[in-house]
Amino acid sequence: MSDPLKVAVAGLGTVGAATVRLLQEQADLIALRCGRPVVVTAVSARSRDKDRGVDLSALTWYDDPVVMARDADADVVCELIGGSEGAAKEVVETAIARGCHVVTANKALLSNHGPALAAAAEAKGVVLAYEAAVAGGIPVIKTLREGLAGNHIKSVCGILNGTCNYILTVMRATGRDFADVLADAQALGYAEADPTFDVEGIDAAHKLSILASLAFGTKVDLSKVHIEGIRHISAVDIQFAEELGYRIKLLGIARQTDHGIEQRVHPCMVPVTAPVATVDDVFNAVVIEGDFVGRSVAVGRGAGAGPTASAVAADVLDIAAGRASAFTFGVPAGQLAELSDWSMEQHVGEYYIRLMVRDEPGVFADIADALRKAEVSMEAILQRGRAPAEVVPVVMTLHETRESSLRKALENIAALPAVVEPPRVIRIESL
Amino acid sequence: MSDPLKVAVAGLGTVGAATVRLLQEQADLIALRCGRPVVVTAVSARSRDKDRGVDLSALTWYDDPVVMARDADADVVCELIGGSEGAAKEVVETAIARGCHVVTANKALLSNHGPALAAAAEAKGVVLAYEAAVAGGIPVIKTLREGLAGNHIKSVCGILNGTCNYILTVMRATGRDFADVLADAQALGYAEADPTFDVEGIDAAHKLSILASLAFGTKVDLSKVHIEGIRHISAVDIQFAEELGYRIKLLGIARQTDHGIEQRVHPCMVPVTAPVATVDDVFNAVVIEGDFVGRSVAVGRGAGAGPTASAVAADVLDIAAGRASAFTFGVPAGQLAELSDWSMEQHVGEYYIRLMVRDEPGVFADIADALRKAEVSMEAILQRGRAPAEVVPVVMTLHETRESSLRKALENIAALPAVVEPPRVIRIESL
Repeated sequence: MSDPLKVAVAGLGTVGAATVRLLQEQADLIALRCGRPVVVTAVSARSRDKDRGVDLSALTWYDDPVVMARDADADVVCELIGGSEGAAKEVVETAIARGCHVVTANKALLSNHGPALAAAAEAKGVVLAYEAAVAGGIPVIKTLREGLAGNHIKSVCGILNGTCNYILTVMRATGRDFADVLADAQALGYAEADPTFDVEGIDAAHKLSILASLAFGTKVDLSKVHIEGIRHISAVDIQFAEELGYRIKLLGIARQTDHGIEQRVHPCMVPVTAPVATVDDVFNAVVIEGDFVGRSVAVGRGAGAGPTASAVAADVLDIAAGRASAFTFGVPAGQLAELSDWSMEQHVGEYYIRLMVRDEPGVFADIADALRKAEVSMEAILQRGRAPAEVVPVVMTLHETRESSLRKALENIAALPAVVEPPRVIRIESL
Repeated sequence: MSDPLKVAVAGLGTVGAATVRLLQEQADLIALRCGRPVVVTAVSARSRDKDRGVDLSALTWYDDPVVMARDADADVVCELIGGSEGAAKEVVETAIARGCHVVTANKALLSNHGPALAAAAEAKGVVLAYEAAVAGGIPVIKTLREGLAGNHIKSVCGILNGTCNYILTVMRATGRDFADVLADAQALGYAEADPTFDVEGIDAAHKLSILASLAFGTKVDLSKVHIEGIRHISAVDIQFAEELGYRIKLLGIARQTDHGIEQRVHPCMVPVTAPVATVDDVFNAVVIEGDFVGRSVAVGRGAGAGPTASAVAADVLDIAAGRASAFTFGVPAGQLAELSDWSMEQHVGEYYIRLMVRDEPGVFADIADALRKAEVSMEAILQRGRAPAEVVPVVMTLHETRESSLRKALENIAALPAVVEPPRVIRIESL
């Protein structure tokens, strides 16, 4: 049996502590599977005294994770601090610079600095691994980079944020409104005190940009992702979705199109029969289409200590076993292509539109006219109940429409005197 | 860029031809992803002249695949002939003996000779890879061996045979009977002329035995798998399943139990809300439970030229990139544990029972009595319509019951004069 692989862990929050626990508890299993032991040698966190349910007594403690990354007796540094700048970034850069392998769960870091970090790691001949950055319970990084490497990938889509999926699931189950459910999710620890990254779709966009890079051999570029969150989803939309045979999910979608690679994160209506429609609560789902493999779907927990530690461990074990991929994003960093420009305006798809209109004669005709002028064709229009002179929801579904045409039509519709709120748009996706 | 990896392909059926096509068509992509080219140098098949839609003119042709395995200018031999004995086995043994890596799609071979072949490959320091042997469209071998390697696996279950799943899907959709649908499936090429391996559950058992070895670090041992096929599933059972809120699926289930590792392949009733319930047609599904990751589910095409070639290519690319696993079944072959004995009689679960009984007074009392004597407790009993003195189906569901008790009860029930056919048993699984 070869020498042990030595691991230093930066950050001992729930994920860091679970990672240390996993590597300690499963030490025998890991040594058997890797052909060598894996030992945690050093840790770094803010507070030394906090009880984390793991025995740290035999490990070298560092108050400063960057000092640990520079000095610790380690072959691998696990960066589990989080955040795209500051300590997390410094830890990763420092470890790479001294020739240490890096395992990270940090999607924000990779989404913002992926290409540069990949180039640095590859220049140093070290591994930069990040299975835990996207859907911890699904080995999707490995699947894209290795399992489906013989395929041209056509698209990768999925439910990438567990917090949003949990909120949407509870909204549907209870009929309650977004703000209300969010507050509960925060109380339960399913949503952060500042939920912006989750509910605005930014976390999902980080993850999507990483998956797109792996799928298409392009540079991670967060600025090329169209991002909308779930704040404007209301109970009434969820109810209409139900009636129309859809579920509302926040999806990330990256796809080869005639106009280049589109990357978009926004709420979608998906048919109840779609593979992601019944993926509820904090579960994530990823749907990959390859030219030879066809469609491959995976579902697992998106976050949480256990699944994330499992993903971190997978990367550490790959390094221990000598089978980690040399190319961070699946191809040499120097050969990652620039993403061409792509705009959401070019998107063609089906749409759900909800208007709040004063129920008065001629409104439908005015709406239909605005659509016709923008050459947008309606599939169905739906108004539940009549309430003359009161404000009622009117719902339309549109056939395949170019987003730019839709926006023109909606401008005209929003300007109608009887339309009293900005129109709500949810794109329909039949994946 | 390093030297090309040279590949010899034995067997040019639909999978072999698709593999050659994939490696040729995606050559640029593959070279980029592996850091070196992958080239097919030699092929072997029965007929040299058959049009397979791929250009073989530049390749060395061998009439005898074993001679190719011995002599070809190759680093990797892909065995795509099939069958647990004969040429396929000889090709693999010959390639390993001369120090060539082997990639195979052959589940029968691995199920019957896996431990010996793994020991031979590891002794020679070559890779024996077989992603294509189980659920080609799902990278489940890689997921178990690498992606979830930090976990103690509790269970691995799934829909592992596309032919059976297709037949059950059509039976449900059309209400037609097994023999009828099988004949159609044969005409369509979804089932073999001799469908025994598929419909008797043997193919699924081959795959399950391989997954169990990877999951639990035990020697592949087909003799330890309890196997039942789908021949006895009738349209009436599918109809009752529907009424009771279940779908009938042929599942393979391997699980750590108090009595050792159970491995069983048989038709199951699964709740319509289970993740595998809506996996239809030729799709496969795999559900893995690990101690840290929780539940991870994957769905993809089970067979067919494209998905299988994609899986073969993944293994070849791992070898080209120098990241293939050294241990065939996840741990050193010499350390694979023997499977302890386990018997289906020890299984505890819920059951669906269908009896064909003459509708006469006292029958229900006799049945209930036979159950009570075997200490089996009934959850529900169901008889649709009355037809005095005629034969009608009576359906029962049973609470958690030990299989040995159930069998005793069924013996007594089968002996009742009013029970005119052998009882039909379908196990209920709530995975």
